[in-house]
Amino acid sequence: MNERAVYERIRSEGPISRPEVARQTGLSKPTVSLALADLERTGLVRTVGHRTGNAGRAAKLYEIDPGAGRVIGIDVGREWVRAALSGLDGEPVVRRDVRSQARNADTLIEQLAGLVAELSAEAGIAPGDVTYIVLGTPGVHDVENERLRLAPNLPGWDRPGATGRLAERLPAPFLIENDIALAALGEQAHGLGAGISDFAFLSIGTGIGMGIVLEGKLFRGSQGAAGEVAFLPLGETDPLTRTPGARRHGMLESVLSAAGLVATARRLGMPGRPTVKKVYDAARAGDPIALEAVRYEAGNIARALASVVALLDPELVIIGGGLGQHGVDVLLDAVRERLTDMTPLDPPPIEPSALAEEATVLGALATGLSTAIDIVFNRAVAEPAVG
Amino acid sequence: MNERAVYERIRSEGPISRPEVARQTGLSKPTVSLALADLERTGLVRTVGHRTGNAGRAAKLYEIDPGAGRVIGIDVGREWVRAALSGLDGEPVVRRDVRSQARNADTLIEQLAGLVAELSAEAGIAPGDVTYIVLGTPGVHDVENERLRLAPNLPGWDRPGATGRLAERLPAPFLIENDIALAALGEQAHGLGAGISDFAFLSIGTGIGMGIVLEGKLFRGSQGAAGEVAFLPLGETDPLTRTPGARRHGMLESVLSAAGLVATARRLGMPGRPTVKKVYDAARAGDPIALEAVRYEAGNIARALASVVALLDPELVIIGGGLGQHGVDVLLDAVRERLTDMTPLDPPPIEPSALAEEATVLGALATGLSTAIDIVFNRAVAEPAVG
Repeated sequence: MNERAVYERIRSEGPISRPEVARQTGLSKPTVSLALADLERTGLVRTVGHRTGNAGRAAKLYEIDPGAGRVIGIDVGREWVRAALSGLDGEPVVRRDVRSQARNADTLIEQLAGLVAELSAEAGIAPGDVTYIVLGTPGVHDVENERLRLAPNLPGWDRPGATGRLAERLPAPFLIENDIALAALGEQAHGLGAGISDFAFLSIGTGIGMGIVLEGKLFRGSQGAAGEVAFLPLGETDPLTRTPGARRHGMLESVLSAAGLVATARRLGMPGRPTVKKVYDAARAGDPIALEAVRYEAGNIARALASVVALLDPELVIIGGGLGQHGVDVLLDAVRERLTDMTPLDPPPIEPSALAEEATVLGALATGLSTAIDIVFNRAVAEPAVG
Repeated sequence: MNERAVYERIRSEGPISRPEVARQTGLSKPTVSLALADLERTGLVRTVGHRTGNAGRAAKLYEIDPGAGRVIGIDVGREWVRAALSGLDGEPVVRRDVRSQARNADTLIEQLAGLVAELSAEAGIAPGDVTYIVLGTPGVHDVENERLRLAPNLPGWDRPGATGRLAERLPAPFLIENDIALAALGEQAHGLGAGISDFAFLSIGTGIGMGIVLEGKLFRGSQGAAGEVAFLPLGETDPLTRTPGARRHGMLESVLSAAGLVATARRLGMPGRPTVKKVYDAARAGDPIALEAVRYEAGNIARALASVVALLDPELVIIGGGLGQHGVDVLLDAVRERLTDMTPLDPPPIEPSALAEEATVLGALATGLSTAIDIVFNRAVAEPAVG
C-alpha cells in the first residue's frame, strides 16, 4: 500500500527526493525509505542524480523506470487501426496507423496480433514483455459471450466467441472498451477534459456516440449503454411507428452521421457525388445548398445536445469524430447558435476535440496504464527479487 | 471521528453492546469505550438495558437518543404544503398537510414559519430547538441571489432576496432543494430506490421533472439543472422554430403534464370538462377517447424515457407525481409497451412510486438528517458538557 502511494507520487512529481515524497504523502521518513528500497529492488523506481543547492547534504532524486512495464493501446476502427506503445510513464514511444482489415473477424484478429508483434519489435522488447493491452472498438463488449454488441461496422464480431479468439492470439492480458468512451478518457488525460469533473464527448463519424465522464470517472450506466445517443428518439419519423427489426427508425442515427450529411446535401440538390469533405468545402466557400445542409446537420446535433443538457447538465461538450473534425469551423458556430435558439437552459461551452483522431488511442493507453501498474506491482509482490 | 463512526453504528444497528460495536467498526475496545463515554456525556447516546443469556457478564446495550436533535422536512408545493418533524432516528413523529398559501412569497413564508412553530409545539419542543430544516420546492435555488429559478408555480420566489427572507422567519438553519430531487432521495431512503445504485425518478404532475441518483448519490449536474426533462426537445412543434420568450415551445413540458393530458382528451373530443381523474376513470371503464388520450400520454412519457435510457441507462425508473399516481394502473402498461416499441435498447423496469405524495417530505427528512447530526456533533465538540 505504502509502496503504491510512494510510486504514484514519484510518477506524478518525479524526479523527487525522499524528504519531498515524505512531505507530500504524509508518510513518515522511515516508511518512505523502506518503500523506496522495495521499489528500487523490484526495478519500478530508479535514482537519477542529486538535488544540490540547498544547505546540508545533496538529496538523491528518484524517478519511475518506465521500462518496468509496457502498455499497448489500439483504436480498432472500420477504416483505420491506430496503435501506440508506451512505458509506465504513459508517453507513447511507438506509434503506428494502418488501414483496417475489418472485412471479417479473423483477418482483423490476425492484423491486431501482427501489429502487437511489430510494435514490440520496434520498442526493442519481446511480445511477451507487453504488460497489458487495451483495444477500443465500436459497440459494447459482451464479456460473457465473448462478442461485440451494437458494432455493425466490425463484421463477424457479433458471433459468440469472437473476442475469445483474441485471447489466443495476443501475448498479454487485454481489455476491450468502447472506442468513444476511450476517446472521452483520452480527452480527460491529454485534452480538453483535463480537470473537468463532468463532460460529454460527442463523436460524429461513420456512426455517432457519446462518452460521458461524471465526477471524473467514465459513466457506463447499468448495462454499459450510457451515452448511446444514436438511439435518442430524434429522427425525422415517429419512433412509435417503428416496425420490429427497423433498428434506426426514428432514432437520431438515421439523420446524424457522415452518411446523413451527404444524403442531406444530395436531397437538397447538391450536384456531383457529394462527400463530407466536399460539403464542408462548399459551405466554407459560401455555397447556399452546402450551407443549408450544414445548418440542418447542426440542428440535429443541437437536438441531441439539448437532450444532454436537460438530463446531464455537463460542464463542457467536446465534439470529435470525422464529421466533427472536418467541419469544425463551419459546423460548431451553427451548433452553438441553434442550441441557444432551442433550449431555455444555459448551454455549456461546445468545443472541438483537441486530440482529433488520436483521442481513442491515447485514451486506451491512459486506461491501460493503471491496470499495467497493478499487474507490475502484483508480480513484484508475488516474485520478490533477491534482496 | 471515532465518535461519529460509533454513533453511526449505533444508529443503524442499535440497541447494540460495546463489544458488538468494536467488532463491527474494527475499532479497539478501549477506543469504543472512550467514544461511548463521550457520546453518553453529550446526550447523543443512552443505555437501554442489558443483553443477557450469554455466558459471562450481561452486556450493557446502547441506542441513540433521537431527542438530541430535530429535523423538519417540508414539501412546498403550489397546492399543498406537507411537513414532518423527526428526531435523529429519522422517524416522523409529527406530520401535517395544509393547503398552500402560495399566492405570493410573503404569505407562503409566513405560512412556513407558522408551520414550523406548530410542528415544534406538537412535538413538545421550542422552535429554537429545531436543529435543521429542509424545504423542497420546484425549480433551482440560486443561493447567491436568494431566489428560485424555473419555479413559475411559486409566484414571487424569482425575485432576488426572496429566499433570504425565509432566514429571518425560520428558527434554524435550512436548505432549499428541488422537490423532485428530494422525492428521488425519499425513494432511496424509504421506497423502491433502496439499494439501487443508478435510478431515475420521473414526476408528472402540475409540471414534469426528474431526480437522478447515480452511484447512490443525487446527481445535480454542473449548474444544478440535471434532470430538467421538461426541456427535452420532444414537443410536437420543432424547437428550432421557437421565438425568444416562448419558453415551452417544442419542449416536452408543452405536451406532458396534467394539463397536457386534459387538453389531449378535450382535443380528441371528450365531452364535459375533463379532469385527470375523469380521463383515467373513463379509460379504466374502456372509453375509447380516454384510452386514446392515455395512449398518447404514454407515448410522450416513452419518448422521455427513451432519451433517459440512451443517455443514462438506469437500473430502474420510478414514476411519481399526481399524474403517475392517479393513472398508474392504466398508464404504466402503456408506457412500457410504447417504450419497448420505440427503442432498440433494453428498457429498465418502470415502476410506480411506493411513497406517492410522501416522497418529497420523506426525502427532505432523510436529507436533513445527516446535516442535523453534523450540527449536533459540532455543538457537542464546541460546548463540551461538564464531565
